[in-house]
Amino acid sequence: MIKGIKFSGIASGIKPSGLDLGLVLFQEKTHVLSLYTSNRVKAAHILYDRKYEGDPVRALVVNSGCANACTGKEGIADLEVIGEKLAKLLKIGRTEVLFASTGVIGKRLPVDTIKSALPVAVKSLREGHAEDFAKAIITTDTHHKLVKETFKGKKDYSIIGVAKGSGMLNPNFATMLAFVFTDYPIAPDAIRAAFRQAVTESFEKITVDGECSTNDTVMLFTRRGEQDLSALGEFKAKLRSVLKDLAIMLIRDGEGATKVAHIMIKGARKKETAEKIARRIAISPLVKTAFFGSDPNWGRIICAAGDAGVPVEPAKVDITLQDQEIVKAGVELPFDEEKMKRMMNKNEIAVVVNLNEGKAVFDIYTTDLTFDYVKINASYRS
Amino acid sequence: MIKGIKFSGIASGIKPSGLDLGLVLFQEKTHVLSLYTSNRVKAAHILYDRKYEGDPVRALVVNSGCANACTGKEGIADLEVIGEKLAKLLKIGRTEVLFASTGVIGKRLPVDTIKSALPVAVKSLREGHAEDFAKAIITTDTHHKLVKETFKGKKDYSIIGVAKGSGMLNPNFATMLAFVFTDYPIAPDAIRAAFRQAVTESFEKITVDGECSTNDTVMLFTRRGEQDLSALGEFKAKLRSVLKDLAIMLIRDGEGATKVAHIMIKGARKKETAEKIARRIAISPLVKTAFFGSDPNWGRIICAAGDAGVPVEPAKVDITLQDQEIVKAGVELPFDEEKMKRMMNKNEIAVVVNLNEGKAVFDIYTTDLTFDYVKINASYRS
Repeated sequence: MIKGIKFSGIASGIKPSGLDLGLVLFQEKTHVLSLYTSNRVKAAHILYDRKYEGDPVRALVVNSGCANACTGKEGIADLEVIGEKLAKLLKIGRTEVLFASTGVIGKRLPVDTIKSALPVAVKSLREGHAEDFAKAIITTDTHHKLVKETFKGKKDYSIIGVAKGSGMLNPNFATMLAFVFTDYPIAPDAIRAAFRQAVTESFEKITVDGECSTNDTVMLFTRRGEQDLSALGEFKAKLRSVLKDLAIMLIRDGEGATKVAHIMIKGARKKETAEKIARRIAISPLVKTAFFGSDPNWGRIICAAGDAGVPVEPAKVDITLQDQEIVKAGVELPFDEEKMKRMMNKNEIAVVVNLNEGKAVFDIYTTDLTFDYVKINASYRS
Repeated sequence: MIKGIKFSGIASGIKPSGLDLGLVLFQEKTHVLSLYTSNRVKAAHILYDRKYEGDPVRALVVNSGCANACTGKEGIADLEVIGEKLAKLLKIGRTEVLFASTGVIGKRLPVDTIKSALPVAVKSLREGHAEDFAKAIITTDTHHKLVKETFKGKKDYSIIGVAKGSGMLNPNFATMLAFVFTDYPIAPDAIRAAFRQAVTESFEKITVDGECSTNDTVMLFTRRGEQDLSALGEFKAKLRSVLKDLAIMLIRDGEGATKVAHIMIKGARKKETAEKIARRIAISPLVKTAFFGSDPNWGRIICAAGDAGVPVEPAKVDITLQDQEIVKAGVELPFDEEKMKRMMNKNEIAVVVNLNEGKAVFDIYTTDLTFDYVKINASYRS
């Protein structure tokens, strides 16, 4: 619970059933720092929110069940209408309301449905309802994701992180969204770089299917007013930890996933090289199906590495799978296939590829590619 | 049948069962033009064959069941031993023998097994055995791929194309290989550019899983001696047609595929832009699972386009699916979802994305992503 920040999550009727509308009310005007998808096709909420970047915020509306992406000018006008209605109910300014959406692309928001539901959402606002909010924003996620931390400065502070997403993008009902709330008073400029870095180290280090959504959004809300710089270091550490925890929760709940794989590239000349190789391995359907099948098929790993568009010297490469060294200098070491298969029949897979060319490293988390991934994504929308 | 080119395909024991060793003998020294994988990790046969680039060729050995990739210096030495033995049997020079391999990465060739089988392979050589050769080089392919054409110059000429591959890379037993044989006398320099272009327009326009193998190889063998330039135009046309036919046969037989999708990007400012968008859509697991599910989910198509790393103006984009216009200027046109679903329940899917920004186009073929793709690739190697 954070004093001065109230949450609600209700079933408004955007989805056929279940919670689908989350609302947050800040008792005082608050700062916000936002990061959005790099996709060239951006959802209406991103185009809308960006207009008010830097302005103080009083409320946040997040809906699931409809991405409000590729909806043209009408998609933005819809948010203006909803914002107007909410502003009246809360007696705040319309431009003090931000939005985020997740769900199917190309469909307009059911504006009348949402407008009729807003009074209920406002009435349900409580400091203790963060969990309802977290539940209202999920789609193909099998559970909601919420992390709390506390830390000390001139007084005791709290930080609450909420996220949804069953991968970087999850189709029909899509998108990665994350929101961080705190009563710690700090100005955006003091933490912009740390926030960007924390996102790079968390959400940008997970991938389910290599797909980048039209709606991806991470927002950090901090208190306005006199800053407490005595706790800045601790706040940054907690922020990193909250985002990392949320990212791991997302990847564990990746669509159809039965396993989480940690891919570590070591010994690169440059970090960029290590990153390209790590990301290429992490999205390889052949590597990911091998994980699903508990197959110690290192050939697929080195093949993906070779296809990353950066120099790789196969004769220098060492690979360990589940802490077992199975490739030395590009050539297979004798190993017991049955034993190795049993070792891979775990929820956690660890791959380390050492390029033996330098000191740079990069790591990333991915999932296995399973029948259920195909099932979830091949099933018709309606 | 081509006079002067003999084929055989036998079961040598590299695989537990089935044909696995193909041999081609050229009665006269022949020209060869080769193109190899862009993967930084290259199979032993590529490293070996390249040493003799430009030299005349008398024989070609192709095995399935073992990629001979990531096998270090030993993998190359193994080819020298096999080449030595075959050269003695055929009374030709060892360096006149070229190799190609396909199968699991990281395992050495069973040299003794292959050496013992060579006399049988030599004894089976016949001008009419091209089909046996085509059968010996397949892996997860459900059938062999062979195309024949004839054309006229100063005399009648033939061209035979053989290929294998159930996608750009097919895991355990992997790799795209293609070989073109002809009795048409032409020097490599006269057709190098046309060959490169024909490959670009055929094998480089198909993708099953976006994976690039360590072994991909395309070889064109032409007769040495006095050239017949009167048929050069026709030969180039036949070459394009043979490679295109083989490529389409490969994509139709893509691992687990139930559908072939043709993705056409139009109205780009530059061809490179159209190509990047086409390739990004063609490897998108979300688009490919939607094809499998007959889901007219155009949101996934525009989302993938937006993630291609090139500028896209969503508000200008038109999309047709199965010749039905469903998106105009970035916004959905009303369509009957049930009817559209039935129209997508076909073996062939046609997607046209018009960026409406220029005149450049690019098209590519891909498959759907199915339960069987996961099944084939998650099953343990042994």
